[in-house]
Amino acid sequence: MSAKAKKPSKAKSAEDAVLSDVRSLPCSYAHFDESTPLKLDSGQSLAPFSVAYETYGELNADKSNAILVCHALTGDQFCASDHPFTGKPGWWGLMIGPGKPVDTDKYFVICVNVMGGCMGSTGPTSEDPGTGKLYGISLPVITIGDMVRAQAMLVERLGIEQLFCVMGGSMGGMQVLDWAAKYPEQVFAAIPIATAARHSAQNIAFHEVGRQAVLADPDWNHGKYHEDGKVPRKGLSVARMAAHVTYLSEQALHRKFGRNLQDRANLTFGFDADFQIESYLRHQGSTFVDRFDANSYLYLTRAMDYFDLALEYDGVLANAFKDTSTRFCVVSFTSDWLFPTAESRDLVKALNAVAANVSFVEIETDKGHDSFLLDVPELINTITGFLRSAARRRGLEA
Amino acid sequence: MSAKAKKPSKAKSAEDAVLSDVRSLPCSYAHFDESTPLKLDSGQSLAPFSVAYETYGELNADKSNAILVCHALTGDQFCASDHPFTGKPGWWGLMIGPGKPVDTDKYFVICVNVMGGCMGSTGPTSEDPGTGKLYGISLPVITIGDMVRAQAMLVERLGIEQLFCVMGGSMGGMQVLDWAAKYPEQVFAAIPIATAARHSAQNIAFHEVGRQAVLADPDWNHGKYHEDGKVPRKGLSVARMAAHVTYLSEQALHRKFGRNLQDRANLTFGFDADFQIESYLRHQGSTFVDRFDANSYLYLTRAMDYFDLALEYDGVLANAFKDTSTRFCVVSFTSDWLFPTAESRDLVKALNAVAANVSFVEIETDKGHDSFLLDVPELINTITGFLRSAARRRGLEA
Repeated sequence: MSAKAKKPSKAKSAEDAVLSDVRSLPCSYAHFDESTPLKLDSGQSLAPFSVAYETYGELNADKSNAILVCHALTGDQFCASDHPFTGKPGWWGLMIGPGKPVDTDKYFVICVNVMGGCMGSTGPTSEDPGTGKLYGISLPVITIGDMVRAQAMLVERLGIEQLFCVMGGSMGGMQVLDWAAKYPEQVFAAIPIATAARHSAQNIAFHEVGRQAVLADPDWNHGKYHEDGKVPRKGLSVARMAAHVTYLSEQALHRKFGRNLQDRANLTFGFDADFQIESYLRHQGSTFVDRFDANSYLYLTRAMDYFDLALEYDGVLANAFKDTSTRFCVVSFTSDWLFPTAESRDLVKALNAVAANVSFVEIETDKGHDSFLLDVPELINTITGFLRSAARRRGLEA
Repeated sequence: MSAKAKKPSKAKSAEDAVLSDVRSLPCSYAHFDESTPLKLDSGQSLAPFSVAYETYGELNADKSNAILVCHALTGDQFCASDHPFTGKPGWWGLMIGPGKPVDTDKYFVICVNVMGGCMGSTGPTSEDPGTGKLYGISLPVITIGDMVRAQAMLVERLGIEQLFCVMGGSMGGMQVLDWAAKYPEQVFAAIPIATAARHSAQNIAFHEVGRQAVLADPDWNHGKYHEDGKVPRKGLSVARMAAHVTYLSEQALHRKFGRNLQDRANLTFGFDADFQIESYLRHQGSTFVDRFDANSYLYLTRAMDYFDLALEYDGVLANAFKDTSTRFCVVSFTSDWLFPTAESRDLVKALNAVAANVSFVEIETDKGHDSFLLDVPELINTITGFLRSAARRRGLEA
């Protein structure tokens, strides 16, 4: 069942990547047919549908050592193995692997491409069996709850009754919270990082800017760009640039780039990228387009915007976790202005209100929201310590 | 000399506004011919050139009561009179007028459209006398220093030896600092608000996102959209949306919009503007395009990015204000994350280092960077008090 990371034969171009049959990706798939539709929060159903996932390590005999890792907006299932398009190492390679905090010598790690994504799970680039064409934006809107529901169906199919841990940052953290609220018996421990129980007005605003940038690109063509053999490169690139600024802190930008010039001694008095920060951002935008689908970007930003966990529990967040026996480790970062510590505190307050077992760590760092992906020693230590202690409680470690 | 606000005959459309002869705007003009070129920081010269400005109140006999108001990125000379395109009241109507903090019964207020702008001063929508076509992006890059140099030429032409005060917020504040540094004898008092002596990496990053959004719009056509009778509406609109989010605070967005839905009881599970914040932003984007030129947006964001006052003084900001006798009132806002208080503190430290006469007020408000344009009582009180005290020193008030 465990899939080893396969080396990609060759990095693909954006058009290749988006237009190719993503089902040929080097990972595992679970296909659900008409008899097991995915019931969506919108009231619609999706069938058939596929879940693409990657696993690392081995599931133990009593299936008690599984850790579900939930990825963020632009992440994917390749959390600890090379990305098949870019050839780059997994996005959480610092965290997951043999001897790492999430030790694949001990744990069986599952990482699922979210529904609505573009790396094999059913999304806008999947074929709509009703029309024989790609879904594009005719795919129903997907919510965080829908993503989690699909993951739960996979976990059931894998025969795992309880996940030892569900963990993730940002949009991944939203999935962690949804898991803990909806499937409390199936989550022994939960680690929501740099996240919130609902998306703020400011965050919705930044997402809307990104969506409008995509929609403004004539190559987007009402989401039917695949039919034209095109990709709305410029729009998606601008969306990524805008988002990327929000993932970093002002201090980190100042430290990394300041007002340094890019390969030149003086200002050019033109509109070229004079400053390093400008060429860095342009690079971020253009490489993103090579690995991500524009319609997926619309779907996944929408899913985050719609997330408001309390709403499903009479507006009281604590009700979402009533009688929970899950152990929580809530992590925030001081310089994260996208998901500031105050949001984690609100979550901790709700957990305290139901006397949940919760530890809360605010980590001092100037690396901004992206800290959960970066080499932040206190994060590594926190995850290591929490998992070790939870493993003892679960009887996984002496 | 004082121009009364004239009512616009009719609000114009975006294309009308941009393509019409802006020299017919209801304001004053100063034209400088080949004999008096504007020397630019880039090393180039601009001649002929025009400066469009608006005045309010009357200049007194000894010409000692003039206040120069410097506008921000998307502002203009109509600070206290109706905008000729939109018909909306002046952008600083709260601050300037009879009986207001900047009392036009006492002071002669001058407000100049910046060089590179699109409201009558020479900018990308001006005719290049060399080609007979509009400049577009063939206009040399304009800096904050260039804007101030043109204003100084106007002030000289008006026969004013010393300005009683130079004041402005954001990009306007940058001009205030440049004035105080370059023309210390001509500035009796200076009020830089919500600004900085240099543009931060994060701010350059947000500007670059906006520029790339404009450049991504095929209607931009390498800056020659006027020749096609088009305007890059979508790109400029996205740029404005991205910028607008940065002008507000997270708290203000939460208070004003939260996660409130727009004219609907439930989420629509689509990509319409479900949330009020989304339709608000879309509206901000689309109305901006009706009054602003896309190429001017490129020039003015660039001017701000290039601003680094210390650089012209051996990297030591204090040197910019050596031996100054100008009285400074530095104002920042607690919730302004674009020009945070720390930037104002750096400025105040530099002023203190040269024993300048400086008062510094950090105003507690949740309204973000835009606070300087909004009804913030402590700002009104601060400006009123500072101007009154400075006026007494200048012998303008008993």
